[in-house]
Amino acid sequence: MTTGRLIGVGVGPGDPELLTLKAARALAAADVVAHFAKQGHASNARAVVACHLRPGVEELPLLYPVTTELPTNDPDYTRTIAEFYESAAQAVARHLDAGRTVAVLSEGDPLFYGSYMHLHALLSERYPTEIIPGVTGMSGCWSEAGAPIAQGDDVFVVVPATLPEPDLARRFADADAAVVMKIGRHLGKVRRALDRSGRLSRAIYVERGTTDRAITMPLASKRDDEAPYFSVVLVPGWEAR
Amino acid sequence: MTTGRLIGVGVGPGDPELLTLKAARALAAADVVAHFAKQGHASNARAVVACHLRPGVEELPLLYPVTTELPTNDPDYTRTIAEFYESAAQAVARHLDAGRTVAVLSEGDPLFYGSYMHLHALLSERYPTEIIPGVTGMSGCWSEAGAPIAQGDDVFVVVPATLPEPDLARRFADADAAVVMKIGRHLGKVRRALDRSGRLSRAIYVERGTTDRAITMPLASKRDDEAPYFSVVLVPGWEAR
Repeated sequence: MTTGRLIGVGVGPGDPELLTLKAARALAAADVVAHFAKQGHASNARAVVACHLRPGVEELPLLYPVTTELPTNDPDYTRTIAEFYESAAQAVARHLDAGRTVAVLSEGDPLFYGSYMHLHALLSERYPTEIIPGVTGMSGCWSEAGAPIAQGDDVFVVVPATLPEPDLARRFADADAAVVMKIGRHLGKVRRALDRSGRLSRAIYVERGTTDRAITMPLASKRDDEAPYFSVVLVPGWEAR
Repeated sequence: MTTGRLIGVGVGPGDPELLTLKAARALAAADVVAHFAKQGHASNARAVVACHLRPGVEELPLLYPVTTELPTNDPDYTRTIAEFYESAAQAVARHLDAGRTVAVLSEGDPLFYGSYMHLHALLSERYPTEIIPGVTGMSGCWSEAGAPIAQGDDVFVVVPATLPEPDLARRFADADAAVVMKIGRHLGKVRRALDRSGRLSRAIYVERGTTDRAITMPLASKRDDEAPYFSVVLVPGWEAR
């Protein structure tokens, strides 16, 4: 008996129409559809592809024991999350060993800041594996804002908002164009770092890009520092010209 | 009479199956499909979507007068290319004024290092405009290589191979993960800069990712410095952990 195939499926930034044709076909054909979610929450990625799932397809929810917003250098966090990915990989492997194709949903692109990568690292050498790239969340956000992000010889950088303020300011000043991810409770700090690096006037805040709850505005016009985890700040390079 | 609509359509990295559902529908409905190409060459983006075009749809080829590999600081180049984008925008505007919807094809994502951005800058304030984001060429390449590129708190940078060698080396050393675009005749320099920054052993060379002519190998194993313009070098952050 041959094993099943592991498929990392990028589902794009939120609009179900931004799924690729290849992803839609893979979901229609998969024996098992696996998706990550916080315990007690529905999976965002599953919600995006709901209309593309085969009725009655077997689903495998993979539920994080802790939130990813805890400090990643906390040894308890590190151990708990490593154990979680190990047991998630074992749950997927049981289906693969039984000859079933498992599609693992990934918001955006599977190999760009996605949880799927942990399963990939644990399983891709033991099982036939395929990656279906997706439209990233950041592409969805700059498209929502209609903001050309980088061109020509621009240096473009993606920085997590979790960095210390001086590091953020240095990174912004050193790049032509930037995207700040994982904003959450860090928006005040990001705003100050943009100001220090002379980039605040160009910065655009985008929340839930490509969905019907999308919000986009110049960051300088945003009155508060409230932001969901999946918001981004864009610093387009284009306007510097 | 109302004007037509301008749509920047990302066609993804090369595999026609990596078009989004939204892009496929937009192409099926567009009155005019515009595409950039070098004079005397077929448009890559048009080849990707050929099977999605309505038979007999009106096409508008936009032909670069010069190659984009000339030094971008040459004043002749700058003037010639600016005039080209102006006349391309006028050609698109004539269709929009006549009430026709014009889909402008863009390899990868329209607002990420794409020629479409120049039309967007010239037309989006005068005409209703929509952006359909696409899977970027770099996502296609790291998926082809099966290489998780960035995760967690990684700083990720995109650098054009056109930068001087010391700048490249500094950028590589200063980021957790990197993608080098526009390799072409710069591969030897990129290789030396990766070596100087201690990143050569992690670097992966990818040519024509997601197509049936794809090539992927460790850069250190590549025997020559020959590379097409649309090849990339990936420096995954993951392995640094």
